[in-house]
Amino acid sequence: MKVAGVLGATGSVGQRFILLLAEHPDFELRVLGASPRSAGKRYVDAVNWKQTDLLPESAKDIVVVECKAEEFKDCDVVFSGLDADYAGPIEKEFCENGLAVISNAKNYRREEDVPLVVPIVNPEHLDIVAHKRSQDKNKGFIVCISNCSTAGLVSPLKPLVDKYGPIDALTTTTLQAISGAGFSPGVPGIDILDNIIPYIGGEEDKMEWETKKILGKLSKDNSTVELVSPEEMKVSAQCNRVAVSDGHTECISFRFKNRDQVPSVEDLKKTLSDYVCDAYKLGCHSAPKQTIHVLEQNDRPQPRLDRNRDNGYGVSVGRVREDPVLDFKMVVLSHNTIIGAAGSGILIAEILLAKNLI
Amino acid sequence: MKVAGVLGATGSVGQRFILLLAEHPDFELRVLGASPRSAGKRYVDAVNWKQTDLLPESAKDIVVVECKAEEFKDCDVVFSGLDADYAGPIEKEFCENGLAVISNAKNYRREEDVPLVVPIVNPEHLDIVAHKRSQDKNKGFIVCISNCSTAGLVSPLKPLVDKYGPIDALTTTTLQAISGAGFSPGVPGIDILDNIIPYIGGEEDKMEWETKKILGKLSKDNSTVELVSPEEMKVSAQCNRVAVSDGHTECISFRFKNRDQVPSVEDLKKTLSDYVCDAYKLGCHSAPKQTIHVLEQNDRPQPRLDRNRDNGYGVSVGRVREDPVLDFKMVVLSHNTIIGAAGSGILIAEILLAKNLI
Amino acid sequence: MKVAGVLGATGSVGQRFILLLAEHPDFELRVLGASPRSAGKRYVDAVNWKQTDLLPESAKDIVVVECKAEEFKDCDVVFSGLDADYAGPIEKEFCENGLAVISNAKNYRREEDVPLVVPIVNPEHLDIVAHKRSQDKNKGFIVCISNCSTAGLVSPLKPLVDKYGPIDALTTTTLQAISGAGFSPGVPGIDILDNIIPYIGGEEDKMEWETKKILGKLSKDNSTVELVSPEEMKVSAQCNRVAVSDGHTECISFRFKNRDQVPSVEDLKKTLSDYVCDAYKLGCHSAPKQTIHVLEQNDRPQPRLDRNRDNGYGVSVGRVREDPVLDFKMVVLSHNTIIGAAGSGILIAEILLAKNLI
Amino acid sequence: MKVAGVLGATGSVGQRFILLLAEHPDFELRVLGASPRSAGKRYVDAVNWKQTDLLPESAKDIVVVECKAEEFKDCDVVFSGLDADYAGPIEKEFCENGLAVISNAKNYRREEDVPLVVPIVNPEHLDIVAHKRSQDKNKGFIVCISNCSTAGLVSPLKPLVDKYGPIDALTTTTLQAISGAGFSPGVPGIDILDNIIPYIGGEEDKMEWETKKILGKLSKDNSTVELVSPEEMKVSAQCNRVAVSDGHTECISFRFKNRDQVPSVEDLKKTLSDYVCDAYKLGCHSAPKQTIHVLEQNDRPQPRLDRNRDNGYGVSVGRVREDPVLDFKMVVLSHNTIIGAAGSGILIAEILLAKNLI
Repeated sequence: MKVAGVLGATGSVGQRFILLLAEHPDFELRVLGASPRSAGKRYVDAVNWKQTDLLPESAKDIVVVECKAEEFKDCDVVFSGLDADYAGPIEKEFCENGLAVISNAKNYRREEDVPLVVPIVNPEHLDIVAHKRSQDKNKGFIVCISNCSTAGLVSPLKPLVDKYGPIDALTTTTLQAISGAGFSPGVPGIDILDNIIPYIGGEEDKMEWETKKILGKLSKDNSTVELVSPEEMKVSAQCNRVAVSDGHTECISFRFKNRDQVPSVEDLKKTLSDYVCDAYKLGCHSAPKQTIHVLEQNDRPQPRLDRNRDNGYGVSVGRVREDPVLDFKMVVLSHNTIIGAAGSGILIAEILLAKNLI
Repeated sequence: MKVAGVLGATGSVGQRFILLLAEHPDFELRVLGASPRSAGKRYVDAVNWKQTDLLPESAKDIVVVECKAEEFKDCDVVFSGLDADYAGPIEKEFCENGLAVISNAKNYRREEDVPLVVPIVNPEHLDIVAHKRSQDKNKGFIVCISNCSTAGLVSPLKPLVDKYGPIDALTTTTLQAISGAGFSPGVPGIDILDNIIPYIGGEEDKMEWETKKILGKLSKDNSTVELVSPEEMKVSAQCNRVAVSDGHTECISFRFKNRDQVPSVEDLKKTLSDYVCDAYKLGCHSAPKQTIHVLEQNDRPQPRLDRNRDNGYGVSVGRVREDPVLDFKMVVLSHNTIIGAAGSGILIAEILLAKNLI
Repeated sequence: MKVAGVLGATGSVGQRFILLLAEHPDFELRVLGASPRSAGKRYVDAVNWKQTDLLPESAKDIVVVECKAEEFKDCDVVFSGLDADYAGPIEKEFCENGLAVISNAKNYRREEDVPLVVPIVNPEHLDIVAHKRSQDKNKGFIVCISNCSTAGLVSPLKPLVDKYGPIDALTTTTLQAISGAGFSPGVPGIDILDNIIPYIGGEEDKMEWETKKILGKLSKDNSTVELVSPEEMKVSAQCNRVAVSDGHTECISFRFKNRDQVPSVEDLKKTLSDYVCDAYKLGCHSAPKQTIHVLEQNDRPQPRLDRNRDNGYGVSVGRVREDPVLDFKMVVLSHNTIIGAAGSGILIAEILLAKNLI
Repeated sequence: MKVAGVLGATGSVGQRFILLLAEHPDFELRVLGASPRSAGKRYVDAVNWKQTDLLPESAKDIVVVECKAEEFKDCDVVFSGLDADYAGPIEKEFCENGLAVISNAKNYRREEDVPLVVPIVNPEHLDIVAHKRSQDKNKGFIVCISNCSTAGLVSPLKPLVDKYGPIDALTTTTLQAISGAGFSPGVPGIDILDNIIPYIGGEEDKMEWETKKILGKLSKDNSTVELVSPEEMKVSAQCNRVAVSDGHTECISFRFKNRDQVPSVEDLKKTLSDYVCDAYKLGCHSAPKQTIHVLEQNDRPQPRLDRNRDNGYGVSVGRVREDPVLDFKMVVLSHNTIIGAAGSGILIAEILLAKNLI
């Protein structure tokens, strides 16, 4: 059992980490970090628990500490659910003190030597960690979890690009769940009841940029990630917030670069169905047995019905069909707090463990 | 005052027609047609009224009749809110008996000599009616109201195409309100609460086809409409049902054919703002003073806040910006039961009246 | 035209006051007060306008001032939408400087010489103002608007008590709209989507207490209000927040004190329907023509369909029937931001004006 | 393993029975009955599956049969999810043919020799079955599952009545989930979005009547149930439909008959917490470990957060406090499709099995 800690433990993402770590076969949750206001309290007294599952007994009595590396020195891995406002210096201090940090914050996603990982998509980017640790086995590192809507987008793209070559142009219009906005205050009820908010600050830029990093390649020495260039792949995102609790739906269209041999709709569906993510092959505990569920009913996937496939680690794809403007269009549904946030963090740790990197 | 009748008077669209006709300065509602089951009853006894405005006093005591032309022979105009399952033969019989029918049903939309009209977009297609009546002034005719999501889509396109030339490629992803699905049963609550339905039967095809007719041109003799060809304009629609009562939101992207002189975002916004629809110039009672409202706030338009601009006859456009894949992207909001259904029917009648065609 | 000012002008209640004052025949909105952060800005620049109606042109360019009596000295009446956290000293200063304040805040509701008024229920309590001004015609005063759910509760009780005598016991379970909680942050979306919150801080106590004041009598010299005693009338409230934007629904049961001559259900309905509030008799602009709408359909009132009767000043009552435990039960719907907040403030001012008290 | 069948297998309740029977340790699902239209098809082809869990593999290929006793003759127990419109003659035929029927339909609930059972409340009423089978061990019987909102109401009452004696008066106002209305069409989306429906046909009468049967006593020979008389216990229900998917919330108030020794709030909470239902003592697979969860936070229970306690077999109670009109008030939350419908059916079968009655 590896020892785990959680930063930002009282927040929305922190609570999800704690749920996913309870009774995890590989990790024992031992350290919880939060703001100075919470430090010193038992977790059960510090948190306003708002999950549908009960607060795990094993976490209740842990005394919350401040977010300082010294407090987490016994941790083999630290999961960070910190807000971007705080994550920068804290995660840096942890990294400098030799800790392995898996972060949901956006702060370091664009550093070229920081892997930005959707664990069912590009676990090979974790070789950057192997490269670092090969130089100094006690070296700290940060691995970033991708933006939630990006995770859903790239999941079906990966097997398609692997098989049919680069994507030339890609558009996505998202219908995103409110749980992605956290608790305090998150999306006000009066703004989302009988309504849509056609804007999520920074989200479109994240999707357009992060997609190019996640689908990018490692440099030869495994020290950095090289982005797909904007000339090679044009990505356009339109992001909306809708009255859904969990589960991001995306309507995507795309065109392959290779015009000679465009696959058929049936080819695409088979390629998606056949995809087995490396994390599953590595035997990781949380890896989805079926990475991508291809649904045949016209009116699926639907967030309420399909978001929990493979405990939220499986992505659902439906309505694969030809597109009059680009080549194909389809609907993608992913669980924003699992494969789009805390859940990905846990699966990344499982992969690191399987690769002896923590 | 012209005499008006309503077909399908107890249904969702019929109820809206009745509301819009109450206290209308040009039309006096005198005949209400519904199924044989309702015929013979006072309207107030036949209808399950489900509007937020009260049933108009003037309609309460009208005795419902069957949907037969004979019953409507005194009507200068008949508004049809019939379901497509019934509209075909009934509307045909009305037309053959010399009546002027303005229909919300899809049945005759694809007939080349039937105008398919969004009154703030292509009232000139009503010249087909002038052509018909010039041949025989007692001739009946049908004018079709467009599909609701199509109405929202073409509204901002019209001034852009007028000014910048044809659109080469166009994608739209819709987030459509449930009122568009009617009452019986419409969209079940359990299907839409905390959910999205990424499919509306027939809707994508309607949007892709009707856009080409509405933006098409009349034949030289004004007898038919010539569609924009699929080669000239590629249209791709992805339609979703969301938990919104009224107001269709659409995320659209488009590219102009003319590559020499692509306008700027500011050009586009000015062109949209400056657009004054012909119905307004004609002095039509319901015509929007501001046809297209260009909103500058990042997070607008929103259905709950913006759907009622100009009593639902105005369309709101926001987030006009460049698109990495096509030229531009923007968000369009239109009121699906006003400009997307019954309201358009009323405004079409007002235009016909202004042009002495009824 | 009397000159009006609004305190807390950028908040949720303040915005409603401004909407209701735009184009009001009796009042001209001239002064807007808000926090020092907003003071000095044009209103359109200071406010995050979140109403479904557009910001009135007449208010856009008013320069916001701080909430100091000096700034409002030309006002005949000042409407306060201040949060309770700030209302106390500010409203006191205004009153001490001779201003007429109509406040939505709870701070002074329990003062015995401050009228707590639902204008369609107990306008006679405004005689306290007459009493004050008879002593010194320049004296300032505060009139408090009641709690929103209390307003809905007492509206049908008033004509019943007037006719059938005191109510002995009363229970109400509320299903309250989220607009009542304001904007910042109000009720978080994640807390109310597919959910109920069975608690609203302080609300049950307010309902149980305020009902006794509103149904209480003036002292002989009109200087204070005497509460109905808890022995005379037992009131029990259970308050819930539900996913409704506007409109509080209440399921109420009650028993009359007089056991000799309990009325019939039909008696009750007639008494409710026949009730004409004094504000209407006084010719007040906003007074509802029909104070209480008695609905006969089983499944009414419903907030979405019935909340806007008489522009939100009319209260709807349905399902009046016998109760196996107390005497009767029924469902009451009232518009929480109109008769339950800002709207009541405006109507109180209209009554004061009709009585020459401002 | 006992052999189980399901009637009304394609409906909402039928689908829940099938989910709960998949991988059940005691029952093997072997026969699925539905309408003649579905008979002859594989279940996967006959059903429009609308559950958040996937259709169990074990049920997919079962060929649906008509609802005739002959087809179910090998079943040890038959669960009926039939609509009341069909349940009457079908369940009667099954019973007459010696089958054990556990029904969610209302048709036989008021027969004095048919037990009406909430398994965590009155399993002793199943002694009627023992009585019947003691006369003829092959005799068929029907056990009725109670109405969903009644199940939530009586659960906390049972331990209170056991300890503190009869309840004299009881009021409940419900906020009921839409899943209770089934699929076809159930509650229309347009009726429940931003709305409440203050009426559920027949529900109030069911709650007022069924409570008296469930809390009633068996006759001396165990052949019938004797209702609590209306004089002994007055019950008043007000039922509302709200925008919640699963989970009925009820605000209840009650007064004990015994005035000498009214317990304290703390007494009540302890009695509720300490209650262990007989089904749990019998070791039944689905019985809740904690029958009643007493929550201390002011704003709980909430349907989204608390409905799944003990897999939906546990009931949550919060806000236990004194009531100014009756003795106490509190909020009760129960999962309407588990303890309020199919789940109760399964647990009843487990109890029958534990008692060797099937």
